[in-house]
Amino acid sequence: MTTDKLISEIRKKNSFLCVGLDVDLDKIPNFLLEEEDPIFSFNKAIIDATHNYAVAFKPNTAFYEAYGIKGWKSLEKTINYLNQTYPEIFTIADAKRGDIGNTSSRYAKAFFEDLGFDSVTVAPYMGRDSVEPFLEFNNKHTILLALTSNEGAYDFQTKKIEGETVYTQVLKTSKNWKNSENLMYVIGATKAEHLAEVRKIVPNSFLLVPGVGAQGGSLTEVCKYGMTPDISLLVNSSRGIIYASNQLNFAEAAAEEAKNIQLQMKAILDGIR
Amino acid sequence: MTTDKLISEIRKKNSFLCVGLDVDLDKIPNFLLEEEDPIFSFNKAIIDATHNYAVAFKPNTAFYEAYGIKGWKSLEKTINYLNQTYPEIFTIADAKRGDIGNTSSRYAKAFFEDLGFDSVTVAPYMGRDSVEPFLEFNNKHTILLALTSNEGAYDFQTKKIEGETVYTQVLKTSKNWKNSENLMYVIGATKAEHLAEVRKIVPNSFLLVPGVGAQGGSLTEVCKYGMTPDISLLVNSSRGIIYASNQLNFAEAAAEEAKNIQLQMKAILDGIR
Repeated sequence: MTTDKLISEIRKKNSFLCVGLDVDLDKIPNFLLEEEDPIFSFNKAIIDATHNYAVAFKPNTAFYEAYGIKGWKSLEKTINYLNQTYPEIFTIADAKRGDIGNTSSRYAKAFFEDLGFDSVTVAPYMGRDSVEPFLEFNNKHTILLALTSNEGAYDFQTKKIEGETVYTQVLKTSKNWKNSENLMYVIGATKAEHLAEVRKIVPNSFLLVPGVGAQGGSLTEVCKYGMTPDISLLVNSSRGIIYASNQLNFAEAAAEEAKNIQLQMKAILDGIR
Repeated sequence: MTTDKLISEIRKKNSFLCVGLDVDLDKIPNFLLEEEDPIFSFNKAIIDATHNYAVAFKPNTAFYEAYGIKGWKSLEKTINYLNQTYPEIFTIADAKRGDIGNTSSRYAKAFFEDLGFDSVTVAPYMGRDSVEPFLEFNNKHTILLALTSNEGAYDFQTKKIEGETVYTQVLKTSKNWKNSENLMYVIGATKAEHLAEVRKIVPNSFLLVPGVGAQGGSLTEVCKYGMTPDISLLVNSSRGIIYASNQLNFAEAAAEEAKNIQLQMKAILDGIR
């Protein structure tokens, strides 16, 4: 998907919500466990119920890998379902990959071509030649971890290299990589005060913002510091939406949660128009 | 596997060689493509031919993921074969994972429990709470990326935080994490001169050293700066061994290469006894 198409979907839906599909068999409604593929059944119901309020869906691959080959089949069915039924949805493989050149090419091929995701999250630690193989794909997006929403972000990401934090160095350095127009960045909502600084370095890049909701980040703060004239934000919510209920009405409850966030987003978008 | 058992295997075999199973269908002998599972057939032949000269095998998961569910089946068959046929072999899932707490727990379970690997490589960028879930497993080892063998290592890893490089900060910080006795570190052979500095910080930790051979690192240099009284080194070679030949004799050629390296290792070990 092109960036322009993503922006136009955001405007059309008045939403920049990304729904995280972090599916845990211990948390989904019990009655689904009798289905042939409970993970896919759960995802399909959640996607069908929430797609009107969201522009993106983001399965975290760890949750699928944890179930071995069965899990990978569920992931494959989920992305195929999204691509076939809702081609206007932006899809993110939250895989946090990163390896040396020829190996990163393998990962890029797996996620972009074989599975058909629009984007994949990538870790920056190994530097340019671990990321550039992802950037070679046209209209595919590489979402680089910059400042994450967890406590451990303070271990290295906010430490200073020659007066500048590691994560701002990641932003600055990566801007010079080949095909850097295909980069987006992960910036956690729990650190919204950093967003103003981020925007000085990458004024136009899309930011994927986890940590609103369950992790405590504020949507208003994120928009205040992170939004651009093209919006350029994807705000993720996972548990708050998909586990809103574990009863028969789980999909309706998820839709209700997603709609609540979408309405907040619409209010913010109306406010800046 | 316990660290003591690994050390005793190294002494018994006079080898600290790790064989990287980075299997690429474009590079394996053509005649194997007719097999039902060419990747597993290739791995099995390589493992059978080289296990006397190596103490560890390391599949890089990217190469398997690139082939989708078929690839994951090949990985599963490979680790099962290793665990059943050669339980004395130390196994490494070169996955370079790392995510927030509950997600890292998922990865740890997948690699340690479900697949049964002895160890997994993990990226440090997200800090303590992304790594500690891996450290909770008894007699399982978390191999943290510190200084990698690729060019991109100079982008962030060797940059200085308050006078100290990022990778030495990773070493120092991670020593204070819970169950840090289960940590090993990746230190690239292409930067052997850094090993003396590494040993000042982690004098006894096992180091997994890629980059000898194809990438140009020197075994003698690595041992000079990195070896401890308990050896505490695993030196990896992938392409140099597994693609020594793509003819009918590919397994024998791989064995010959592995034996050459093992003999160099024996000479070094004899020299320090």
